[in-house]
Amino acid sequence: MNGAESLVQTFVDSGVEVCFTNPGTSEMHFVAALDRIDGIHPVLGLFEGVVTGAADGYGRMAGKPAATLLHLGAGLGNGFANLHNARRAATPIVNVVGEHATYHRQYDAPLSSDIASVASPNSVWMETPERATDVAGAGARAYAAAMGAPGGIATLILPADTAWLDAEGPAKPIAAAPFAQVDQATIDKVAVALKNGKKSAILIRGRALLADGLDLAGRIQAATGARILCDTFTPRMQRGAGCVSIERLPYFAEQAVEHIADVEQLVLCGSQNPVAFFAYPGKESWLTPPDAETLVLARPEENGLAALEALAEAVGAPAQANEYVKLTKPDLASGSLDADGVGRAIAHYLPEGAILSDEGATAGLFTNIYTERAAPHDHMCLTGGSIGQGLPLATGAAVACPDRKVVCFHGDGGAMYTLQSLWTQAREKLDVVTVILANRSYAILNIELMRVGAENPGPKALSMLDLHNPELDWVHLANGMGVEAVRCETAEAFNEAFKASMSRKGPFVIEAVI
Amino acid sequence: MNGAESLVQTFVDSGVEVCFTNPGTSEMHFVAALDRIDGIHPVLGLFEGVVTGAADGYGRMAGKPAATLLHLGAGLGNGFANLHNARRAATPIVNVVGEHATYHRQYDAPLSSDIASVASPNSVWMETPERATDVAGAGARAYAAAMGAPGGIATLILPADTAWLDAEGPAKPIAAAPFAQVDQATIDKVAVALKNGKKSAILIRGRALLADGLDLAGRIQAATGARILCDTFTPRMQRGAGCVSIERLPYFAEQAVEHIADVEQLVLCGSQNPVAFFAYPGKESWLTPPDAETLVLARPEENGLAALEALAEAVGAPAQANEYVKLTKPDLASGSLDADGVGRAIAHYLPEGAILSDEGATAGLFTNIYTERAAPHDHMCLTGGSIGQGLPLATGAAVACPDRKVVCFHGDGGAMYTLQSLWTQAREKLDVVTVILANRSYAILNIELMRVGAENPGPKALSMLDLHNPELDWVHLANGMGVEAVRCETAEAFNEAFKASMSRKGPFVIEAVI
Repeated sequence: MNGAESLVQTFVDSGVEVCFTNPGTSEMHFVAALDRIDGIHPVLGLFEGVVTGAADGYGRMAGKPAATLLHLGAGLGNGFANLHNARRAATPIVNVVGEHATYHRQYDAPLSSDIASVASPNSVWMETPERATDVAGAGARAYAAAMGAPGGIATLILPADTAWLDAEGPAKPIAAAPFAQVDQATIDKVAVALKNGKKSAILIRGRALLADGLDLAGRIQAATGARILCDTFTPRMQRGAGCVSIERLPYFAEQAVEHIADVEQLVLCGSQNPVAFFAYPGKESWLTPPDAETLVLARPEENGLAALEALAEAVGAPAQANEYVKLTKPDLASGSLDADGVGRAIAHYLPEGAILSDEGATAGLFTNIYTERAAPHDHMCLTGGSIGQGLPLATGAAVACPDRKVVCFHGDGGAMYTLQSLWTQAREKLDVVTVILANRSYAILNIELMRVGAENPGPKALSMLDLHNPELDWVHLANGMGVEAVRCETAEAFNEAFKASMSRKGPFVIEAVI
Repeated sequence: MNGAESLVQTFVDSGVEVCFTNPGTSEMHFVAALDRIDGIHPVLGLFEGVVTGAADGYGRMAGKPAATLLHLGAGLGNGFANLHNARRAATPIVNVVGEHATYHRQYDAPLSSDIASVASPNSVWMETPERATDVAGAGARAYAAAMGAPGGIATLILPADTAWLDAEGPAKPIAAAPFAQVDQATIDKVAVALKNGKKSAILIRGRALLADGLDLAGRIQAATGARILCDTFTPRMQRGAGCVSIERLPYFAEQAVEHIADVEQLVLCGSQNPVAFFAYPGKESWLTPPDAETLVLARPEENGLAALEALAEAVGAPAQANEYVKLTKPDLASGSLDADGVGRAIAHYLPEGAILSDEGATAGLFTNIYTERAAPHDHMCLTGGSIGQGLPLATGAAVACPDRKVVCFHGDGGAMYTLQSLWTQAREKLDVVTVILANRSYAILNIELMRVGAENPGPKALSMLDLHNPELDWVHLANGMGVEAVRCETAEAFNEAFKASMSRKGPFVIEAVI
């Protein structure tokens, strides 16, 4: 058994089932080991941003890491942006980054670069085994580090000779650091505060955004009147009919400030104090009201779900929330197609148990709002703000959950970053319907250009935000990667196409010209 | 005048004419400044790998930097791989990377990351102005750093508020460090060595690979019998009819070792001792024969062209080389299309003054060989080995040289990394013909899998190197981005299509199914 085989066996023993790959020469022994050791399904991406984004989507839905296989520092660089988004989602991922053989590094061969420098911004753990016999142990530590609460990216840099030389066998899996329990004094303190008559809100992030956590939050709300909030961009949330509703913080800073202006006590459960996405001249960066008190119920690495359960008991919460979302299928639109009509159709036809990958940006806002009252589903967002995540995220989620329908709605500008995802969807026959919101624009930047105070933009500036010249044709692009597609220019056409797509299997793209 | 305007004016005054951009909110003031200050043509890329690769192609052909505009650490990450390739080409580039406002950085907003950590592996210079009044000076220093011999990547990290606050005006351009002159003692030492009867070779890289440098090398060869070599992957070389021919080192290490096995003295002119691209079990990493002496004529930061001129004089070189390449148009192929036939047609029809962007990988080897005796042209290679450079490199070269035909021949696997380049070619109406060598495979890895000793690969391994399922359709992909395209499956069809493409203007894609 060589080092690569000892690593793959260690991963299998630890719980890895999938490896998203884009390998090169230095990773060939790892690739070969995937046949010699049973248990890992390799999924090829034609670009590393697909690989890392898919690992993020997989990790969010599976609750455990996929491995990635990346080619040296440059391959890791190509995957950087979606690792950044994954870091902001606290998604567990085990990166394997190939490196030149230990004795070859000194020669500064053309593909040499400082891998650690590119890996460190996104990694909670990083290690470079120097001997083949060290590789298996590093693999076990990587898995445990990725799974350590709240979850993170572990990067194992694998010199080629440590993969091809003889090793001693796999390493024993290592238990990950669990979510720490919140102590009763903290629970009691928050419980007392929530009953002191001040206007309170609980900002939730992480595991507690699944249905059981929201149910607890709804019961606490029933007992205390506290509002329930979530960040604009959450890694994963359960929504729709039967769930407790939650207020999403608006994206734009001044709207977020206004939204929570009257909050006197902000309780954090797995979250941080909210801050503006960007700075704007004369606008606030820190969104918590200046006079409000912040109370930490649970830090991200603490068990927010258990904390909510204890808090519900401490405040004497009733068995039910005041209100659960009722299924509200919006009326379908007719006539010319716009973002509102797209949102109506998606919410109308969304099947129970669907997974939404939301990189809808400006045009996706309607879809986001309408689907809140659709059939129950999981909802995933662009956590790190680096566009080009939605397609790979959907891809990885579909690998993790082959029996669930995945719907990705995506701005056309962002979709171009990682369009290669569609090829992987075709190869793996993944059940993903992608709705491209084709407004032929980086629409958000047209708004931001004004908001940052860059008045009276000239033709050069406007051309940098405009995607009309030439127009992208997503039917051709999808077909070019083996995915069937249709373009819709009326609401009726979109309604029909989206409805039909919900009752077929396999990848499909709908270009919604809005 | 705000900080962004002071920066743009400083760039214009320094000599920047083009900015390849993929901006976000934090770069909006720089974008607005491109209208307020005349002199810079902005070129939008729909993915940052296009932006940085195009800046590389521009810099190689223009001999001076383009600016880039990238969105924070994640945008820089997306551009990392082609910056890596540019670093290996010593291409001058001035990166402008947007950053959160100075006072906003403390909040760790979702898009925050350690930009410097991602920038440093590829940058010869890096600076983050903290005040708007510091921005112009940083811009002048960035330009000088990028242009300093032998050329490199300068990264200016631009906090948003330093762009939008008032500045004092542009900074005066700063003279870059020139290529240092090689001293006469070194020239004389090499001249004596080349006459000592030992078998010698001169390995050339950098500016001396243009026609005048090769002419000098040919004259030195005539006087001394020294062989003239270049690396497998050179940033830019002039080749074809009328040029002095040069021996290219083979890619595979054992072939390269054999190729120069009898060399007793290796003279470096702007180059390093050659090393293997990758390590392989039981094969050499260091390619210079163990008993050979290495003589440094010129380091990369020294004036190799002037050194060759002085050396020619010192060895009493004749006025002419022994031989100049004679135009040799290969016969056209017929019947089924293969890589050989593609190479014949490209070399046959290549017009004088064309620019070749070569990421042909395995299937491009024939084209590389045949074009050596084609009409005189410039030839650019994948210097850093990170695939996905050829299309953007061609894009940037066409921006730099609008009156010359650019031909890009590219493996299909590598082309998928930065296919968004085609959209920029369409928008800018660039005169680029792209030949996709569609072998539906990461063909090089099928070879490498064997060479690294990973014998008897199984179906999972083979599927990681195979692009058949599904097949990419480059006509659809190109059309989807507004570029006309044709698929050729016979030699006759390819001959005709390539010939026709040489007498039309604007971007065009030929998918050569081989």
